[in-house]
Formats: sequence, structure tokens, C-alpha cells
Amino acid sequence: MTDQEPLSITTSIDLVIEARWLVPVDSSHSLREFYSVVIHHQVIVDILPTIDARVKYMPSELVVLGEHVLIPGLINAHTHIAMSLMRGMADDLPLMTWLNDHIWPAERAVISEQFVRDSSLLGCAEMLSGGITCFNDMYFFPQATAMAVNQAGMRANLGLAVLEFATSYASDADDYLRKGFEAHDSWRGNALISSSIAPHAPYTVSNQTFEKIITYAEQLGLGIHTHLHETRDEISQSESQYGMRPIQRLTELGLLGPTFVAAHGVHLLAHEIDVLTEYGCHIAHCPSSNLKLASGIAPIALLLKNGVNVGLGTDGAASNNRLDMFAEMRLAALLAKGVSEDPSTLPAHQALEMATINAAKALGLEDIIGSIEVGKQADLAAVKLSDFNTSPCYDPISHLVYSCGREHVTHTWVAGELRYSNGVYANIEPIELKEIVQTWQPKLRQYKH
Amino acid sequence: MTDQEPLSITTSIDLVIEARWLVPVDSSHSLREFYSVVIHHQVIVDILPTIDARVKYMPSELVVLGEHVLIPGLINAHTHIAMSLMRGMADDLPLMTWLNDHIWPAERAVISEQFVRDSSLLGCAEMLSGGITCFNDMYFFPQATAMAVNQAGMRANLGLAVLEFATSYASDADDYLRKGFEAHDSWRGNALISSSIAPHAPYTVSNQTFEKIITYAEQLGLGIHTHLHETRDEISQSESQYGMRPIQRLTELGLLGPTFVAAHGVHLLAHEIDVLTEYGCHIAHCPSSNLKLASGIAPIALLLKNGVNVGLGTDGAASNNRLDMFAEMRLAALLAKGVSEDPSTLPAHQALEMATINAAKALGLEDIIGSIEVGKQADLAAVKLSDFNTSPCYDPISHLVYSCGREHVTHTWVAGELRYSNGVYANIEPIELKEIVQTWQPKLRQYKH
Repeated sequence: MTDQEPLSITTSIDLVIEARWLVPVDSSHSLREFYSVVIHHQVIVDILPTIDARVKYMPSELVVLGEHVLIPGLINAHTHIAMSLMRGMADDLPLMTWLNDHIWPAERAVISEQFVRDSSLLGCAEMLSGGITCFNDMYFFPQATAMAVNQAGMRANLGLAVLEFATSYASDADDYLRKGFEAHDSWRGNALISSSIAPHAPYTVSNQTFEKIITYAEQLGLGIHTHLHETRDEISQSESQYGMRPIQRLTELGLLGPTFVAAHGVHLLAHEIDVLTEYGCHIAHCPSSNLKLASGIAPIALLLKNGVNVGLGTDGAASNNRLDMFAEMRLAALLAKGVSEDPSTLPAHQALEMATINAAKALGLEDIIGSIEVGKQADLAAVKLSDFNTSPCYDPISHLVYSCGREHVTHTWVAGELRYSNGVYANIEPIELKEIVQTWQPKLRQYKH
Repeated sequence: MTDQEPLSITTSIDLVIEARWLVPVDSSHSLREFYSVVIHHQVIVDILPTIDARVKYMPSELVVLGEHVLIPGLINAHTHIAMSLMRGMADDLPLMTWLNDHIWPAERAVISEQFVRDSSLLGCAEMLSGGITCFNDMYFFPQATAMAVNQAGMRANLGLAVLEFATSYASDADDYLRKGFEAHDSWRGNALISSSIAPHAPYTVSNQTFEKIITYAEQLGLGIHTHLHETRDEISQSESQYGMRPIQRLTELGLLGPTFVAAHGVHLLAHEIDVLTEYGCHIAHCPSSNLKLASGIAPIALLLKNGVNVGLGTDGAASNNRLDMFAEMRLAALLAKGVSEDPSTLPAHQALEMATINAAKALGLEDIIGSIEVGKQADLAAVKLSDFNTSPCYDPISHLVYSCGREHVTHTWVAGELRYSNGVYANIEPIELKEIVQTWQPKLRQYKH
């Protein structure tokens, strides 16, 4: 009972998050201090100074983040989440040895619906703990990945993988497509899962199949996600086989467009960057994987300068070996500076854009996620900045990219639901992850380097 | 009371550490499983299978690391620890703007014995928590850094900084030298602190001063630590002023030799690498800083191939912005692969060598630290590999470089004493660090970007 009733509190609200700092990653490029995000029915309904929020709202739940910066949930623009169980299985090897002697034999031996579900759940746990709320995937048995995504309570854009050759998943390109569309149908109506058609790469997919993919993508309104210009070998092989570089081949086939996401894009000529700009294509930049597999260094400064939308991706855990967008933000920013020999290249806020709103654009989800704006889904991550390793803090945006690690993430929300907080998952039990590792590690060990 | 007495237990011992995995970083390049390190009077006195250690020793203290890999304490081969309070103060800026408008004015305003002690203590805390037991420093007021090092219980090689121009620390080169030798005398007899003479760089030190430094270094038996070929500007300036590149100038002056540590070494011609090899010089490779300041990418694969000893350094927190050797190991390994376009370049064990034994060699301390070998000081770090983010673990050495972060470090010992464990420092109180940050941050804030 107080003399002064909170007369202005008129709104019933699910959740208010009070943050010391807020980086919305909207067009203002702003940093807000002592700001609150108001969430109702999964959606951000207000963003305002905490001093005003306390007067205006009485939420069912209040989370106070006194030493934290609140950011949009990070979006991993390219990964193979089901390779999580192959983390560190074979390193420091030439690419073809890595593939022929380790990764492919391991895949042939173990890939199944159960493996993909289990490995994906481990990947979901890793990503949630690092502030990642959504990922763009490409792998076999995507419906099994969808099961893990549903359990974890994440968001994902799952690729309907297409190859010409047989695997334990499918027998030929038509079979991949058929199974992919079955999977796509299975998660219709699930607001957290969307699809792309994912032809693996120009060197594993024929012209005929690409033509079918264009037709299906148009009919179903799906984007296309593929590996492109990742290695020099891929390009010279295309020149031998098709008499042209892959980008030209895909352009002539009619594949390029504003829903086309090319993972890697390491080796690009100036006129190819122009083509990507002209068609409104997206690049999923994977700096760790590109270095680790020795593919090279993508011309990110030039791509950005030319207006190509660039998101950041981890690639799979077999070639990274982390599903860690903080590592990718830092590496992308540092690498772009070092290669351009200009320290103002790719400043911190731009790295954060690449890990959030740019990736959302690549997935066609920029109206739903990728920034903290009224009307968008409440996909959020809180990062604590008061550790000694991140003190002092003069600029939270700089810290997010250059000083923080994913270990500083304390809370991850997807669609307004807290899915991870301080080592605890809402829907994943530690014992389940342990059992997954204990089940599969012995089966995979024989393929290790 | 048992029938079978432990008759074989004959040795009184301070400490036994039982590790799931042990990476000694010795010439065997081995990984040992279920191994114990036996420590007495600061020194490693035995390394043997745990099953044998349990029969042979009854230590005063036993530490069981059932899910950890035990490694030599990491050695940071180049840093400016007292810049820790300037972490993230100015980023994404051209080098001269960064220096002229932010770092130098801040230094002029705040540098004092108290600042250096306080900032160094924060740096010691950061390094200990990341498994770093020793660092090679260069900054003003080294006796103040020594105070912090003593409190933290770390090991350090402190540079006696020399410049031609006046700062709040000293008035001219002779004054720097005089104060440096006073500092050097002050920690004589301290087994954990050693000295180098640290002429800042070829562009800030005259020929005459370099000649004096050579004489003093010979008389006192001290190594030399300097910045060298960090930027293109430095080289072209030398060509204008001296008619030659810095390495040639220092060679002609007689500075190069087996106790000479060059930080950075980014821009090196083939014949300059030959010179470094010939004289037995050491490079302190600082990949994060070199990228962040846009200095460029050092030719590490070539240096290693030519037999130059290369250690790893973080540089200062103002240009990194972490004092994190896990980040440097990963980046060094990835970058060398990407630049050489060969994924077998700089494999994980070699990255670990650069962060341990190679750095010890650079400091002339390879008989004392840098590997886990009988007779060496017990400078050790334990890294837990059972987190979901590092599961499964097929190869702990790969994990140390590619999957782990410093957050997986659980224990850090220096000279057999536990200095850090699971968030707690033996000799540093959290409140002291908080007060340091609260005292200095307001004074520095006005110089931030």
C-alpha cells in the first residue's frame, strides 16, 4: 500500500529486460545506456529508457542486467551443425587428405537420422551458450536437425541438401530433392524453422539439377544456399569441365539473385564482385574455416565497399573447430584490417552487423530478426562486461568484438523465451549431451588423424 | 591399517598433479595419458604414469585433474602489461590518429609509478586466469610492474625501456638507462624476475644510444628487446633517415645476436630472414596486434622454415585488446595456413611450442621454463576439456589451439605455487582490481575514441 499508486502502469507485459547497455544494431548504429526492452507474446513491443520503463510497465518477469550489454541474438550464416561430433577429429591436414581419409569415411560410417539429431543438439547447446539464436545450415537429414532445433528452442534456416552422388541419406539428386521437400513440409507452420534449397557446390551438382533447383525455388519461394568459390581447385576444375568459373556458370544458369547465399566467396575477381552486387547476392563469410582449411582470405573489404551483403558463419565444427560467432566477429574485423593495411576497415559495429542484421538479410528474415527493433522477434543475447578480462569498458561495442569471448554471454533468448542462462539450458539436460558424446565418440575415433 | 603397507613410498614431496592428459612440449612432441607431475621445492622432480606415481609418492598435496590437459605455463613473448587500463580506449583508427590523439595524450596524462603498478596488476590477473605464467614486457616504471608481478606471484622478463624523448618516467636516453639499471638492481636476487634492455624501436633510438646499449648489455649479460619492422612506415622512414632498412642498420651497429628479441617482424625480405637466422635472433610474433593496427601479416611460415625461433606475444591491451595466448595460438596457426594456402602449416603442437618453449628460448630461460621436464620450474596450466564446447575430444593438442579458449583454464601454477584457480587468485583480491578500474577509468575516459 503506497500513497502514490503507479497510475501510469496500464500495460500487461510478459518480460522487461533492463540493460546497462543496449546495442540495437539498427540503422542508427547507436549505443544506448540504461535502456529496457519490453517483450510480449515473443515480440519486442517497446524499447525505452529504463527510467521510463519502470513507470510504464509492470511485467510478469523482470530481468536486470546491471553489468551487461544486450544485443540481437547472433545469427550463424553458414554451418553444418551435425558435424559437431567431428570437432577436432582431423586437423592440420591437406584438404583432400582431410576429406578422403577422415571426414568422408566417418560420414559414410555414422551418418544417420539419429547421428544428425544427436550431433545437432550438441551444436545447438554450443551455439546457445555463445549467444547464437539462429543458424543457416546445410547437411543430410535436415528433419533430424529440426528435431534438435525444436528441443533447444532455437531458430534455424535448414538447407535441403542436394548432391549428385549417393550417401546414406539419399541416392541421387532427385532423391535428395524429394527428401528435402518432405523435410520442408514437416516443419511447415513452425515459426522458428525455415528452409533453403542447398545444392552443395558447383562441383557436386550438375547443370540439369541446378535448373530443377531454380524451378523449385521459385515455385516454393525458397532461397538457395551453396558453397561458392571456396578454393582455387574448385575454380580450376570448373574451368576445365565447363570452360568457365563457377560464378559465371551459375549466372548463366540463372541461379543468382537476391535470395542466393554463397558460403565462403574466397577467390573473387573484381568483375565477379560486380556480378554479386548486381544480382543482390549474399556472402556468408567464414574466416576461421577459410584460414584453417587454407582456402585463403576472402576480399571482404572490397565486397562491403561494393555493397554486397556479407554475413558471418562458423562453417562446421570439423573445420573451425568452434561454433563461436564471437571468434568469427573478432577474426573478420582483424583480418580485414590486416589485409587492407587500414585499421579503420571493418570497425566493431560493422562486425556486429555481419553477425546479426546482415545474416538476417541473407536468410530473408530481416523483418523478423537481426536487430532490436519494435515489432521484431525477441531473439536476444546478454553479454557481461564486468569481468576483469573485459575491464575497463570504455566502449561496449568495441568490447563485443575485440575483448569479449563467448564465455561472457550470460543469457540467450529466442522468441522471448530464455533458452540459456549461466550454464543452464531451458530444454537440454547436461546428461543428455554427455550421453551423446559417449555414444558417438567411440564410433568416430577410428577416423581421427 | 592394511595388510599391504605402501613400502615403496620413500619420498617426501610437496605436490603431485595427476592429469588426464599431459603435453610436456618437449622434443618428443608427445601426448601422455593418465600422467603425473611431481613437484618439490618449486621444481619438477618426476614425470611418470599416475599408476606409478600413486605407488611411489605420498605428497603433501595432491591435485587430481580428471578431465584436464596439463601444459607448461604459457609465456607471452611481447607485451606492455601496464597498458591494460587502456584496453579498448581507441579502436578502428589509423595508427597515427590512435597514437597522437589517444594513446600518447593518455600516457602523458596518467603514467606514473602508481598507474603502472595498478595497471600491471590488472594485467597479471588477466594473464594468470588464461594460463600465462611469464611475460616479456616493455614499459615505463618497470619497478612498478615488478611490484605487481611479485604480488601476483608471476614470472616476468621486464624491459628497461629506452627512448630519446622525455616522458614522465625519464628525460633522455641516459636517464632511461640509469633508471632502468636502478630497476634491474632492485630485483636482483628475485628468482622470478629478469631483465632485458628494451630500446623502444629503431625510429625512437639513436645510433649513439644503441651503441651504449650494446656495451651495457654485454657488461650486464642482458638480452635486448625491441620493436622491429612492425610497419612499412618505420622502414621507409629509416630508408630516408639512414639510407637503409632498420635490420641492416641494427646489424651494422652490432645489435643482432642470440639474445636479441624483435617484436613483430611483419615486413621482412628474404635476405633479412637469412640475417635473423644467421645471428640466432628471436621473433615475438603478435598476430592480433599486427592485424588490428593493420601493420600486416608476418611471414611466419618462412621464418620457421628458415630456423628462426618464433615466440608468440599479445602486445599491449590497447592494441589487441586481450592478453590471451589462446587467442594468439589459434590466430597464429590459422593465419599461417591461410596465407601459405597449406593447411599443414603451423600445426597445433608447433603453435603450442611458440607459446611456451620458443618464448622461453627468446628470453634465455629455456633451461628453467617452457616445457614440463624434470629439473625445470613447475610453471604449469591446467585446461579442462570436458565442456560441451570442447566435446568430443579426440586430440587434446588440437583442442588447445583450435577449440579451447582461455576460459577453460582452471589452474595456473608458478614455481610450484598455485596462483590462480577457478576464478580465485592466491594473492589478488577482486575488490582491489575493482578499485583499480574505478580509480583510473574516469581519468582515462576523456582520451577515448
